[in-house]
Amino acid sequence: MKNLCIAILGATGAVGTEMLNALNERGIPCDSLRLLAAPVEAGKKILFRDRELTVEGASENSFQGVDILLVAAANEISERFSPLAVQQGAIVIDNSSAYRLDPKVPLVVPEVNPQDIETHSGIIANPNCSTIIAMVAVNPLYRRHRVRRMTVSTYQAVSGAGIRGLQELERQVAAYLRGEALEHETFQHQIAFNVIPHIESFLENGYTKEEMKMHNEGRKILHDDQLTVTCTCARVPVFRSHSEAIQLMFDEEVDVEEARELLRTAPGVKLMDDPAHNVYPMPVDTSNQDLVYVGRIRRDLADRHMLNLWCCGDQIRKGAAVNAIQITQLVIQKYFA
Amino acid sequence: MKNLCIAILGATGAVGTEMLNALNERGIPCDSLRLLAAPVEAGKKILFRDRELTVEGASENSFQGVDILLVAAANEISERFSPLAVQQGAIVIDNSSAYRLDPKVPLVVPEVNPQDIETHSGIIANPNCSTIIAMVAVNPLYRRHRVRRMTVSTYQAVSGAGIRGLQELERQVAAYLRGEALEHETFQHQIAFNVIPHIESFLENGYTKEEMKMHNEGRKILHDDQLTVTCTCARVPVFRSHSEAIQLMFDEEVDVEEARELLRTAPGVKLMDDPAHNVYPMPVDTSNQDLVYVGRIRRDLADRHMLNLWCCGDQIRKGAAVNAIQITQLVIQKYFA
Repeated sequence: MKNLCIAILGATGAVGTEMLNALNERGIPCDSLRLLAAPVEAGKKILFRDRELTVEGASENSFQGVDILLVAAANEISERFSPLAVQQGAIVIDNSSAYRLDPKVPLVVPEVNPQDIETHSGIIANPNCSTIIAMVAVNPLYRRHRVRRMTVSTYQAVSGAGIRGLQELERQVAAYLRGEALEHETFQHQIAFNVIPHIESFLENGYTKEEMKMHNEGRKILHDDQLTVTCTCARVPVFRSHSEAIQLMFDEEVDVEEARELLRTAPGVKLMDDPAHNVYPMPVDTSNQDLVYVGRIRRDLADRHMLNLWCCGDQIRKGAAVNAIQITQLVIQKYFA
Repeated sequence: MKNLCIAILGATGAVGTEMLNALNERGIPCDSLRLLAAPVEAGKKILFRDRELTVEGASENSFQGVDILLVAAANEISERFSPLAVQQGAIVIDNSSAYRLDPKVPLVVPEVNPQDIETHSGIIANPNCSTIIAMVAVNPLYRRHRVRRMTVSTYQAVSGAGIRGLQELERQVAAYLRGEALEHETFQHQIAFNVIPHIESFLENGYTKEEMKMHNEGRKILHDDQLTVTCTCARVPVFRSHSEAIQLMFDEEVDVEEARELLRTAPGVKLMDDPAHNVYPMPVDTSNQDLVYVGRIRRDLADRHMLNLWCCGDQIRKGAAVNAIQITQLVIQKYFA
């Protein structure tokens, strides 16, 4: 294998930090690892394995010699740098939403559509966090019985807004206990002891961008334009793990036991479905982990074509960093092995 | 009007306390007000208007002379005392779930089916909190366009477990900030910074009793055995107000603007639907209030027969105490005016 140079753009953020952890945990060979971030972050030291790395300010010429660029930055940053990195010879794995719906860009969940990476023309997109978690849970059922309609209500963690989101929840809770006013900056409203049915901006049709991602990205990942997806996204005062209540309508009858069996052996899934013993997925048990936990599988009360389930997954790990590193592993196998 | 004697059984709990507030706020005439509770609570003093009342331990003979008994106690307590109170001449308004599905017992949301009180034979049941909130929001649409299917995901406050639920969340948050272990007693698991998809016990069919209440009680309140209801109930770390993501399938096309108009003028509803200005219902804005707030009304992306909406309501007030006091008002008008 050739000496591999991997770079992370946005290496100091919540997702960038988890990308470093996942590169390490998964033993990804990276003889050269470069950490890029906003110029204000340049000079910071970060320990990776036994090496101390220095963060570089990203610029137009940062990508010479980079084989794989992981982008953990906002859309505008990705739009500015990803095409340059591709020109300079890198394969870009982009966690922003800038290119996700571009027909030339594959949108990949490695447990679902790994083969799609082969269609890339420089950029491979990492899907939205809630969408990744739903896809890992739903795909094993979908492969056996086609899904016609999917209704999702999310219970999303504050980590979706990065480190500032985590800090804001903690700060508000502390202010509450001191009897002080709860100030907010990162979220539109107070998030401590609250639920905010608003993630990302609203569109003309009354849905948020976040809700439309479940629809648009879900259909793209499954290659199914006939699939109907309705989603309500809400932020809850939880640190890291997203929860989702999912209702699936299949085109044929599906048995609960069969669904459990399909999920028990599915890649990336941990079946956690023993209500008699109070066992079901919850944010506190599923944070800081790479699997999507699925439980509460039950048949609709009237329609034998429908199942309900509940799933949880760590938003920063499987919902972002780990999925990108799994794509990195596919890219290395395919192009650098 | 005759001199009215009202008694509250469970007067010292979270719901009982709010019943007292609501009796006062709504200016209900109660020349004689008796506060009943477990013997251990007997002797406590509670101020009502300008009177100091003494809590009595409830016993078999507590109900002589009582015209209306409000029950804010567990099922077994209601089952023990409600029939005795009826025998002794009282009309019982019962907040427990003991009699809700009894065909001889009307189950009433005053904004939805006030006329049902006339069918009582001593007991009138107050519905489940999440069901009341959903019914107030859905009924104005249902009256114009029949609903075939209703899918609900709840985000339920800890007040559903009474004062101990409120205290447990506060205690866990304080322990978290001190870096101590989070102990739980009232809920099955840690609730601070978590979501628990489990409210009340599980049934054979994989649903919880709480989820089946939305189905069974919803159909009874609307007098519609054809209505399909699927519900996922989850507890979130919020103090008092329940939130619900509701998807409705109608038997004909329904326009979003028409739905808004129907809700704008509906009794007990406050339309709060201006996403462009970050206006939608949230627990922090809807607690300690009697209305059900409805927003995020939008059409399904594929099916013109379907609408999605989001509603919030205070679980102790409209979800329990206030609904019971509204029933009390109907009973007074009908039988004591």
